[in-house]
Amino acid sequence: MRLTILGTGLIGASAGMAARLSAGATVTGFDATPSHVRRALERGAIDDIAESLEVAVRAADVVVVATPVDRIAGVCQEIAPFLAPTTIVTDVGSAKAEVVTRADALLGPRFVGGHPMAGSERHGPDAADETLFEGASWILTPTATTSSDAYRAIAELVTRLGATPVALDPEVHDGLLARLSHLPQLAASAVVAVAAGSGDGEALLGLAASGFRDVTRIAASDPDMWVAILRANRQAVLESLRGLEGVLSELEEDLVEGRWERVHGLLDRARAARVSVFTKPVYTGEPVALSMLIPDRPGVLAEVTTAAGEIGANIEDLRIVHSTEGGKGRLELVVAGDEPADILSGTLRNLGYHVERGTPQ
Amino acid sequence: MRLTILGTGLIGASAGMAARLSAGATVTGFDATPSHVRRALERGAIDDIAESLEVAVRAADVVVVATPVDRIAGVCQEIAPFLAPTTIVTDVGSAKAEVVTRADALLGPRFVGGHPMAGSERHGPDAADETLFEGASWILTPTATTSSDAYRAIAELVTRLGATPVALDPEVHDGLLARLSHLPQLAASAVVAVAAGSGDGEALLGLAASGFRDVTRIAASDPDMWVAILRANRQAVLESLRGLEGVLSELEEDLVEGRWERVHGLLDRARAARVSVFTKPVYTGEPVALSMLIPDRPGVLAEVTTAAGEIGANIEDLRIVHSTEGGKGRLELVVAGDEPADILSGTLRNLGYHVERGTPQ
Repeated sequence: MRLTILGTGLIGASAGMAARLSAGATVTGFDATPSHVRRALERGAIDDIAESLEVAVRAADVVVVATPVDRIAGVCQEIAPFLAPTTIVTDVGSAKAEVVTRADALLGPRFVGGHPMAGSERHGPDAADETLFEGASWILTPTATTSSDAYRAIAELVTRLGATPVALDPEVHDGLLARLSHLPQLAASAVVAVAAGSGDGEALLGLAASGFRDVTRIAASDPDMWVAILRANRQAVLESLRGLEGVLSELEEDLVEGRWERVHGLLDRARAARVSVFTKPVYTGEPVALSMLIPDRPGVLAEVTTAAGEIGANIEDLRIVHSTEGGKGRLELVVAGDEPADILSGTLRNLGYHVERGTPQ
Repeated sequence: MRLTILGTGLIGASAGMAARLSAGATVTGFDATPSHVRRALERGAIDDIAESLEVAVRAADVVVVATPVDRIAGVCQEIAPFLAPTTIVTDVGSAKAEVVTRADALLGPRFVGGHPMAGSERHGPDAADETLFEGASWILTPTATTSSDAYRAIAELVTRLGATPVALDPEVHDGLLARLSHLPQLAASAVVAVAAGSGDGEALLGLAASGFRDVTRIAASDPDMWVAILRANRQAVLESLRGLEGVLSELEEDLVEGRWERVHGLLDRARAARVSVFTKPVYTGEPVALSMLIPDRPGVLAEVTTAAGEIGANIEDLRIVHSTEGGKGRLELVVAGDEPADILSGTLRNLGYHVERGTPQ
């Protein structure tokens, strides 16, 4: 496979390393910062450096746009004229709705939005690591525009990089990420700002124990990258930020009034959720094949895969067999384990599909 | 040394383990929860179990009160009648001003307030670990009441447990801990509450990546323990909580108005502080002896040691030689490194002491 990485920072260079080692890919890199792409080559993240975007993408099977989120749509526009008919494009931006709408319009069915749920407070090719995606979820955001072949190719690629593909609607992704990533980032930075602005000397602040260090680790992240993410996901971030302000304001009142049972209740609910809810359910078991006739219309792929993503069912394989008579096709899914297969079948039946169960061939 | 641990939870049992292994102590344990103290014995944290507080403390050289913070003063009151004249008492509470005032009144010069800057979101003797304090700071809060012999004994003990003693005024400790520990705890719990209360299903919340997991790890802490800490340090916690609400409210306005330079400024200041300020300065070098005549009055010990604590100077040894003529004495300190010795000398001269430098004998 000929893979092209546009933007060889932490995510791009890590994807290049993993693709070369685990997917046997030949990787071409391009970066607007020449020192980044040279460093990526030195670190074994890419096989060669392209001199221009055009050269980078014209022979690629798959193009991964791994630039800062505010440049993704612009890059898609620039590369569109140079893509071969079969080239598939994906991105790794941390906010999806706006980017996916623009990329769908520019690139059509060949584009599959993506976002690996992995990262670090470090950035740049020096921080890259071929194991970065191992065990991580990699969210894909297929839409009514996305072709099933492109989706399947990208799902296979991210699986080879060590991640588990999970399909979500772009808007669902953005709300979720506001709560699970963007709000924690702001909270960490704000906690550091309060502590650092307290007038205590460095010797005292150096006494911070591991709890403080854990909570604030991501406050060391790149501000440029974060401003781009916050701009791209402003409304969802504002909603979650207001939620946090509401919780803290109630807490302040409870402390002032000495309502210790309410304070205990908040801490206890948070403890229970942290211990149990924020653990990805692991469904294992024999693979089950689900098969259904589908109307040959846009949106079926996105509807079925995001239904699976939202219930945590792991799609191990997926294909659409188009009928030669036109107008219809057959969608075949393979899901690990009886329980998620049951839940997913129920969800799909509620969506109007007639689902048959079987054993994968 | 005969050490008694009252309260064999995470901190008490870890201190017992470390004291047995590294300080050659014989450790007696007592806990109001019998299963805790039995487990502490099984895990090698104590040598024997005392049947009552009286039995536990009457033959001890040092008593460590490691109960929840809301019980420390009560335990000090209960044990006071049974203590031998030379027994020294310390505690490990996370809030100090109130506890230290009450313990000073109950126990006098033999009491030295303490708080190890180590812990975990886990609790109980099963989570105990003899390496818990290695490399950690252990704050001591001597007051005008504290005897220098008691201070020196506890500083030596915590050094043997692997920690570095740092003396701070109890009020300074409480303000600092509000910002460095109690506020991060509340922020972590609040971030979890916002995410968990969003109506997303478990499958989606399970997608949380390492950043979320870091920020919210301490939200799994014991709510009972935390309510006791928040009650004991309410005013300082409220002050830091209002500081956080102020930062978040400005951030919300900046996001609404699209003032991205201000958002960038906050993230950038927090990044710089997280990377540099919250690192304990490490002073090393040849030991330097500082010697000074001191008036034989209460408070000198606290004044000198907390001055060292606030500038990050590590006191490696300390003794007070009382003059046989009465009314005066000589305080001898050993500090590692020329630079902290210079800074500390200057600070002490500003406090009115005549400081002589030399080489430790």
